[in-house]
Amino acid sequence: MHIRRTSVHNVWDHAIPPVASLAPGAEFTVETADASGGQLGAGSGAADVAALDFARVNPVTGPFLVEGAEPGDALVIDVLDQAVGDWGWTANIPGFGLLADDFPGPHLRVSKISGGAAEPLPGLRVPVVPMIGTIGVAPPEPGAHSIVPPRRWGGNMDIRHIGPGARLVLPVGVDGALLSLGDAHAAMGDGEVCGTGIETEAAVRLRVGLRRGAAPSTPIIETHPRTHRTGAALATTGIGPDLMRAARDAVRALVDEVAARTGMAPVDAYLLASIAADLKISEVVDVPNWIVSAHLELSLLP
Amino acid sequence: MHIRRTSVHNVWDHAIPPVASLAPGAEFTVETADASGGQLGAGSGAADVAALDFARVNPVTGPFLVEGAEPGDALVIDVLDQAVGDWGWTANIPGFGLLADDFPGPHLRVSKISGGAAEPLPGLRVPVVPMIGTIGVAPPEPGAHSIVPPRRWGGNMDIRHIGPGARLVLPVGVDGALLSLGDAHAAMGDGEVCGTGIETEAAVRLRVGLRRGAAPSTPIIETHPRTHRTGAALATTGIGPDLMRAARDAVRALVDEVAARTGMAPVDAYLLASIAADLKISEVVDVPNWIVSAHLELSLLP
Repeated sequence: MHIRRTSVHNVWDHAIPPVASLAPGAEFTVETADASGGQLGAGSGAADVAALDFARVNPVTGPFLVEGAEPGDALVIDVLDQAVGDWGWTANIPGFGLLADDFPGPHLRVSKISGGAAEPLPGLRVPVVPMIGTIGVAPPEPGAHSIVPPRRWGGNMDIRHIGPGARLVLPVGVDGALLSLGDAHAAMGDGEVCGTGIETEAAVRLRVGLRRGAAPSTPIIETHPRTHRTGAALATTGIGPDLMRAARDAVRALVDEVAARTGMAPVDAYLLASIAADLKISEVVDVPNWIVSAHLELSLLP
Repeated sequence: MHIRRTSVHNVWDHAIPPVASLAPGAEFTVETADASGGQLGAGSGAADVAALDFARVNPVTGPFLVEGAEPGDALVIDVLDQAVGDWGWTANIPGFGLLADDFPGPHLRVSKISGGAAEPLPGLRVPVVPMIGTIGVAPPEPGAHSIVPPRRWGGNMDIRHIGPGARLVLPVGVDGALLSLGDAHAAMGDGEVCGTGIETEAAVRLRVGLRRGAAPSTPIIETHPRTHRTGAALATTGIGPDLMRAARDAVRALVDEVAARTGMAPVDAYLLASIAADLKISEVVDVPNWIVSAHLELSLLP
């Protein structure tokens, strides 16, 4: 089975009729649109970012009815493969992102994707590690729910380890589960700090299974080694009693350090952090100050 | 130069006289005491945890005067090597730790350390990845400051990437910098969620350098590849508008999942999370719900 990226929706609503039925154990391929829903192209610029229609962003392909799935079951999703497009975009969208106050203006970088790397700036090659930003099942609560926040039912989780080789376990909320996915990235860092990764179209091969009555309290992932970064990294820190502020301080320090070392514009260093740096909670017990650290592989610095 | 673990202090105070002077570029070895300051031994039990004298915990060896260091300079510390003891301890200390309300009672596991692994429970072998929990310079503010919270000047950062091969850059706050270190771990996860890693004595070989007027705003680390975990992992999630609560939810879900899969007691799964699981901020931009995930290498599950 191969589902085109024309069968999309932009809100979670269990009243949306399924586009196909899946038998547990079957493999299938899903095409996904890019997170702008086709509003941005390889020739777009910052003005197009400012003009984005937010009612059309983050489309997901589906929903898929999983035969026999009932509330309380666990839906087990194996990501078998993920092909990404030959270009992608990364934007700073005004009002969105961890450092929205620091970077108020629209900004866009288009990456050519080839040879296993994306190139958002000349000479800056970021390894492609494909992942699925949004994957979830329909919430049991009636009506339309925004596609932006993730929930117990998954959705826009932006967990960079949900890619080829990974297994995702979601709770089933309604009969048939009603699985949808979209928002693929060619690369993204833990945190997705500017709000976008390397956004691209994709074709994702999946297999679904069911575990009766085994719904987890929140989504569980089994990751694949290829999604773990292994190189020497530059790590900056944010230290204080509030994790959100510590996260902002760590990313600000990373932006400053990358800009100082490379001459890159701060907004481009911010985009680089979003597609390639990882946010870690380094400690959360040494009262009253916690530490968040932002890690960027040193080999990426041009 | 080789400094014994008898030259320790338990508060930060720039009035504490230095135990030795270091010329920039010199290599030296520092012995560190375990985080209990010798209050716990290989034969200790939970009652000894309950009886800990907190005025004696987290001793650091030092301070070391770095010749020529002045406020505003950057102190560059290369960790060249770190030998750990042949045993270590991991405790749940009442009132301390991310899930202090869930696990109110004292609990202790003593690990034998040999062959590159620590064994907190029979059959559970955790790879040794040595790191320094507390390393910092004296704050410029006069008086005694608690050793527990980290600050701009470093201290009890518990960043698990500060180990052999890593470089740490700290701001200098007072003449001579006054560097001290302690609280070594044979292994620790991002977050150190129960409040302790595999606590052990150590002998750390270091080299210090100075960069004039280059003090960073917060500590910066250059990590070494050996401190990055690379295996397939079990990852649980916490989803919601508060990062601290999301961190708690992710760790609770990991404890539940590990206990269910292995039959391990929940408090032991909590200790395992503290010494071997990593807390990541998976996304912090999809308003209003952020995701923290807790990752534990699947190969560790007995």
